[in-house]
Amino acid sequence: MLSGRKIAFLALRGVEEPELTAPWKAVLDAGGVPVLISAEPGTITALRGDWDRGEDFTVDETLADAQPSEYAGVVLPGGTLNSDKLRDNEDAQAFVSAFFAADKPVATICHGAWILTEIGVLPGRTITSVARIATDLKGAGATWVDEEFVRDGNLASSRHPRDLEAFCHGIVPLFAE
Amino acid sequence: MLSGRKIAFLALRGVEEPELTAPWKAVLDAGGVPVLISAEPGTITALRGDWDRGEDFTVDETLADAQPSEYAGVVLPGGTLNSDKLRDNEDAQAFVSAFFAADKPVATICHGAWILTEIGVLPGRTITSVARIATDLKGAGATWVDEEFVRDGNLASSRHPRDLEAFCHGIVPLFAE
Repeated sequence: MLSGRKIAFLALRGVEEPELTAPWKAVLDAGGVPVLISAEPGTITALRGDWDRGEDFTVDETLADAQPSEYAGVVLPGGTLNSDKLRDNEDAQAFVSAFFAADKPVATICHGAWILTEIGVLPGRTITSVARIATDLKGAGATWVDEEFVRDGNLASSRHPRDLEAFCHGIVPLFAE
Repeated sequence: MLSGRKIAFLALRGVEEPELTAPWKAVLDAGGVPVLISAEPGTITALRGDWDRGEDFTVDETLADAQPSEYAGVVLPGGTLNSDKLRDNEDAQAFVSAFFAADKPVATICHGAWILTEIGVLPGRTITSVARIATDLKGAGATWVDEEFVRDGNLASSRHPRDLEAFCHGIVPLFAE
């Protein structure tokens, strides 16, 4: 279905493990090529919930080197620590901005949506996220809704790990379009 | 200087250790009584930076039991995980709201300011915080400034652990008024 399309997964240390691994598997299973992009080369340690350390994952490419034009879509997993730092990373902001500029798919889950508040893309958009950051998304201009999967054009979003089945089910066709 | 006044420290697991311990010591040294208030009884584990585990601290009182009227001021330390969860806690929101309603001192540092976005007190206020949440505070109506210590009436704020000396120097006189 994805026929070798490359899908970027942007994450830092503290990414919520299932929000990285479940969509990663969904992209693989659909014939796509998931690529882990992070600030530094090496590995990043995930968290399970927001406290227990999970697996280490190998970084495939750095944010400084990654070219948005090579990717058919981007996934922004959550994890409070990951997303809090990623929103402030100028390379990550530029990478995600390029997808909006080209009207290519962006998929966020949980705290992963935070970076969108920094790049001016939320006014007029409908999105969901973990409820704790709803105020931030609304403050940046979004219409926030409490649904397991929301698609607004090429922006897809879910709330938390319990929505992962709906999230994976929704984003693969989006990346395939 | 604080003559036995009780000062509330609101924190959950993941509080940034020096942002709890430095103002705690400053309150003690000034003759005040710092009280650790958290969601659950027992202990909370602090973090140093946002990754390394620090000490466990004993909770003195739960948010459900704490009476704002018994306290002369409240300190909201940071720590991404702590502040992300605390902003969403309705007992914490009610506790902090009571200080604004009574025009009593509230001191925030780093991510500690996040809860203020949830209780409608930021329009017309000037505040600082860790730069990563500036967008959230501005989105909730605040004027955000990049200074080591900001006092706007009974609301005091600092940016990060490197501001702790200025923060402690500023909040003790505020709590003494």
